[in-house]
Amino acid sequence: MRFRLHARMTAEFVGTAFLLAAVVGSGIMGERLSGGNVAIALLANTIATGAVLVALILTFGSVSGAHFNPAVTLADASQRGIPWREVPGYLIAQIAGAYFGVACAHLMFGLPLFSPSRHDRSGVPQVFSEFLATFGLLSVIWGCSRLRSPAAPFAVGAYITAAYWFTASTSFANPAVSLARAATDTFSGIRPIDVPGFIAAQLFGAAAATALFRWLIPALSSVAPDIVVPHVSERR
Amino acid sequence: MRFRLHARMTAEFVGTAFLLAAVVGSGIMGERLSGGNVAIALLANTIATGAVLVALILTFGSVSGAHFNPAVTLADASQRGIPWREVPGYLIAQIAGAYFGVACAHLMFGLPLFSPSRHDRSGVPQVFSEFLATFGLLSVIWGCSRLRSPAAPFAVGAYITAAYWFTASTSFANPAVSLARAATDTFSGIRPIDVPGFIAAQLFGAAAATALFRWLIPALSSVAPDIVVPHVSERR
Amino acid sequence: MRFRLHARMTAEFVGTAFLLAAVVGSGIMGERLSGGNVAIALLANTIATGAVLVALILTFGSVSGAHFNPAVTLADASQRGIPWREVPGYLIAQIAGAYFGVACAHLMFGLPLFSPSRHDRSGVPQVFSEFLATFGLLSVIWGCSRLRSPAAPFAVGAYITAAYWFTASTSFANPAVSLARAATDTFSGIRPIDVPGFIAAQLFGAAAATALFRWLIPALSSVAPDIVVPHVSERR
Amino acid sequence: MRFRLHARMTAEFVGTAFLLAAVVGSGIMGERLSGGNVAIALLANTIATGAVLVALILTFGSVSGAHFNPAVTLADASQRGIPWREVPGYLIAQIAGAYFGVACAHLMFGLPLFSPSRHDRSGVPQVFSEFLATFGLLSVIWGCSRLRSPAAPFAVGAYITAAYWFTASTSFANPAVSLARAATDTFSGIRPIDVPGFIAAQLFGAAAATALFRWLIPALSSVAPDIVVPHVSERR
Repeated sequence: MRFRLHARMTAEFVGTAFLLAAVVGSGIMGERLSGGNVAIALLANTIATGAVLVALILTFGSVSGAHFNPAVTLADASQRGIPWREVPGYLIAQIAGAYFGVACAHLMFGLPLFSPSRHDRSGVPQVFSEFLATFGLLSVIWGCSRLRSPAAPFAVGAYITAAYWFTASTSFANPAVSLARAATDTFSGIRPIDVPGFIAAQLFGAAAATALFRWLIPALSSVAPDIVVPHVSERR
Repeated sequence: MRFRLHARMTAEFVGTAFLLAAVVGSGIMGERLSGGNVAIALLANTIATGAVLVALILTFGSVSGAHFNPAVTLADASQRGIPWREVPGYLIAQIAGAYFGVACAHLMFGLPLFSPSRHDRSGVPQVFSEFLATFGLLSVIWGCSRLRSPAAPFAVGAYITAAYWFTASTSFANPAVSLARAATDTFSGIRPIDVPGFIAAQLFGAAAATALFRWLIPALSSVAPDIVVPHVSERR
Repeated sequence: MRFRLHARMTAEFVGTAFLLAAVVGSGIMGERLSGGNVAIALLANTIATGAVLVALILTFGSVSGAHFNPAVTLADASQRGIPWREVPGYLIAQIAGAYFGVACAHLMFGLPLFSPSRHDRSGVPQVFSEFLATFGLLSVIWGCSRLRSPAAPFAVGAYITAAYWFTASTSFANPAVSLARAATDTFSGIRPIDVPGFIAAQLFGAAAATALFRWLIPALSSVAPDIVVPHVSERR
Repeated sequence: MRFRLHARMTAEFVGTAFLLAAVVGSGIMGERLSGGNVAIALLANTIATGAVLVALILTFGSVSGAHFNPAVTLADASQRGIPWREVPGYLIAQIAGAYFGVACAHLMFGLPLFSPSRHDRSGVPQVFSEFLATFGLLSVIWGCSRLRSPAAPFAVGAYITAAYWFTASTSFANPAVSLARAATDTFSGIRPIDVPGFIAAQLFGAAAATALFRWLIPALSSVAPDIVVPHVSERR
């Protein structure tokens, strides 16, 4: 069953808002409580992010596909998982939701609604990390959503949990997340000037993974796309 | 299959008691062992709470629906998931179980059965946190229980694990839990005077999420409620 | 399908050995690396124990039922889940496996095969903790194995993860584990003199939970026990 | 459905590369952030490794069986799960992928592509640890893949999470991983001279577990191997 577009946009908005509230909020809490031990702060940040992803994908997956991520929406559209005419609505909902989530986190911790980050995340290793992080994320999504959808929410949550630690950039892997995290001058922030490089790397990574899986599993992507498509879109 | 009311009330009593024993007990243990590092104490508290929720919902879900939470019971009743005449029994069982669990935790750690908390949790950010925490919890429950029930216990456990860190209040998200945690002067306590604000925010959050999901998934809530209802109530 | 008794005894032996190797080994590793912070050592010990339980129950559950625990075997026999004549074989395999696992852990960490523990775990709070821990464990097993078996391994792993932190005794909840942990003078040890009290409390807790669930779910325990029984025994 | 060999080799290459990137990368990140507390660094390393395994097995399991491990491929071939003529391709893909993953991790953290490790991991306890770690890993794989395949990715992830802590060697349990980790002079490295002992112990452990499970579950390994085989190979 396919939900109406405005219902799906609402799901993307609320889901992305909660994702950002979780990322930013747990970063603030982790930093406040960990007494200067960055590893413990990042551990809290990691656990909260991975866990909330599992919960949100299970909650909203059947409504909107639980993309919460423009790179996922674009990749899905490129494979006809979602019609191109619906893409702008998804992207707007995701980006607006992301900023709304940052504001909610700030409200919960008594901070101003937005504040530009001063967290330097520049350099080739950072950008390469984002390429790899998003390549991996889309690999997990394509690998799971086509053949093993019931476990996909857990696979995505587990992947991001790991990627927080194994990439030098702590795996943003999401353009909407990157934009909104530039608006928080806390643990999880990123300088606005570093965002374009992150987004470019993320889109390249998503495209590379999509190309790989198109080649890897051709039978599935070529057979009856209009049957596979709603499945891919609704159960991710 | 629907269990007799007193069996379901027993399940709610025992489950809520274990939930509170876990929240309060792990808070005490965490504080005692962490040598003053609050982040590590909260990490232990978080892991224990999230894990016990998964176990308890899987254990008692098929008997009583594993609400363990007056906000969930009221929201469920508002959607005819449970008849209103059974609500008082559920609430009594949950609240009595919550206090019993606190007493058990205190007994296990050699403390007096009850002691009023002096832990200040006042202010707008705290109350807003509870609104958001309960809004999210009910969203997860409605989103999962209607369309993906087998994963719901994991979604709820994951959500609370995350919410401990991303809300400023560490996500009580439960009026019975809020009442009983006022009776422990340990890590997880809350001053009695701060409880009413928490409960009001929780009920508003639950109502808002219920309204959102009624609108988001109308087909499911309007079609054959007497078929959907036992499912919602028994498999949550 | 029911496996031959000696295959099931082997599964109980190997599984219980790995369980003890994990409990004792991760305790040693945690203590060595954590630089005196007991909370971090216990966190490592907790994660290793909960995770290995999930893996072992999934691995051996279909062969022997993955009891690894005399209290579970006795409770199962009391409900005719396993014939009484097979109980001695199960208990011998579990206890022998437990000691073997301790010896393996000691070998891995360059310690003598066995050494009597000097870790004091006496007093009413400790014994009450073991009663409650085992009451909870058997509740989880009965609640899950009768109605939701596929998730049972995760429920048991999650429960023990939580119970390590919310009980004052760190939840032994297992007579074979209690006996064998008296033979390691490391982080997870227990003085031999404290073992009888632990085992008595565990057996009472198991009996109480079994009585509760017999009353709670009578339809299931009274209907066609010879059909339910292999299911309970093999899928726990 | 059986994928073409070069598709499966690609899956093994990419999957093993991500596994190594995760192990080495999270080790570097953990060490950099933990301020000298080895337990916290290892905790981060553990969580990242266990989580990425779950994600990667779910992603690539249906393509190549998600071995990522020569010991698994050899054990599978010995039971006719994969034809011997395909084994060299698998092994080459795994070993090349492992080195590629190490290089990616080094790139992400601004280090030279390869550097020989100076991390001493010699002695009988270390070698015995690897024997036991791999014996356990193959037990989990055989136990799960034959009878409970949908939960196998979680069982493997959980097992490795535990084994990082309960073995003295932090459970390499994989010859390709052992070879490639000799090429990183960081937290997770191993001196090249210690690798042969690790690999020998791993192969003995894998053989012992395979022999045990052949005996334990004879009905399954002797009945219709050509039906069981694709299942074992594709769903592990």
